[in-house]
Amino acid sequence: MLLDLSHPLANGVPSFPGDPAFVATPHATHQEQRVSVTKLTMGSHQGTHLDAPFHFYAEGKTIDEMPLEPFFGPARLIDLVPGGELAPNTELTVETFLPHADAFDSGTRIILRTGWEKQFGKETFFTDFPYITPEAAEWIADTGIALLGMDLPTPGKDAWGTHLPLLAPGVEIVIVEALRNLDRLPNEFTLSAFPLNLKGIDGSPVRAIAIIE
Amino acid sequence: MLLDLSHPLANGVPSFPGDPAFVATPHATHQEQRVSVTKLTMGSHQGTHLDAPFHFYAEGKTIDEMPLEPFFGPARLIDLVPGGELAPNTELTVETFLPHADAFDSGTRIILRTGWEKQFGKETFFTDFPYITPEAAEWIADTGIALLGMDLPTPGKDAWGTHLPLLAPGVEIVIVEALRNLDRLPNEFTLSAFPLNLKGIDGSPVRAIAIIE
Repeated sequence: MLLDLSHPLANGVPSFPGDPAFVATPHATHQEQRVSVTKLTMGSHQGTHLDAPFHFYAEGKTIDEMPLEPFFGPARLIDLVPGGELAPNTELTVETFLPHADAFDSGTRIILRTGWEKQFGKETFFTDFPYITPEAAEWIADTGIALLGMDLPTPGKDAWGTHLPLLAPGVEIVIVEALRNLDRLPNEFTLSAFPLNLKGIDGSPVRAIAIIE
Repeated sequence: MLLDLSHPLANGVPSFPGDPAFVATPHATHQEQRVSVTKLTMGSHQGTHLDAPFHFYAEGKTIDEMPLEPFFGPARLIDLVPGGELAPNTELTVETFLPHADAFDSGTRIILRTGWEKQFGKETFFTDFPYITPEAAEWIADTGIALLGMDLPTPGKDAWGTHLPLLAPGVEIVIVEALRNLDRLPNEFTLSAFPLNLKGIDGSPVRAIAIIE
């Protein structure tokens, strides 16, 4: 079974504050050209997307330079609040992750569920989200996982404090943000989350899909 | 092993004649904001991409309405010119496909190799390509395959004559265009070619990947 983990993209969907808007404009139409073609404008971190190390590191890998293997393969769900939702602004510390430490095998893919996806579309989605602390980001970076996905818009309120350890040279964990439908995931599944083949770019929207046995 | 079947996207890559240009513009930079964010503009049929039925049918399914199953699963390579390249403007007729009829199982994914990917970037890529005839498109539509991928920019010189049978209501074969690296494919593999989750849109760039055992 295939489960879509990606928010839809359409005119009016929210962007991260300060980022470009998503705009779809008719370029050819059935009425005039008997065919539909659309001009699409979006930010490199629009909706469900992933970060390249170059997002935070001027010398970091760009999307087209990232190895393909982290984008596809076995993944584990870490549900931080089974059946519920964490309160706004909940701090996610090293202590939050320690009970799940066994799942953080080197090279694996981890998807974090906080329930925050239900706030998608509200103004507070990008401001009041549960957040990973810099110390917890360093703890995660040390585990050597290949990919960290989440229903949060971004890992932490301290953007540099959380992104820098995860995207550091040699660590380069793929960060997939603003996932949805995480309440429908089993504990183990196969993740497919390939970015577009964007040369020299810092991030990419993705169609993240769970392949469930 | 993962094999990338997608052309890179970068400023200056060619678009289908008349379609929007691909443009990547810095939105935030390491020099000014200590982070890189990019504004991306492209057509819905940019580079390696797939067509929704709505591309040619005003009442047809849009990208977000298409079932996910055709985008992922077992695929077969049909190499029309092993080790070589078809001549420009080669006609691909029913007789071209009949020797490969056994591979066109209902529900499967077929990738056609013509060698034309080597012309990508030249002006003639979009004008002198080998082309499927309307009769051959109707023959393919009748086989009931789920997905037809190709290294060609578009299936036929007769755009309506080839797209209409393939995208017809109830047929709705996913057409993936402008693939690359097809000379590195084995006869059988798993294809992952999910479009972005574009609501109401006629096509989508894709990162098509072959998963090879």
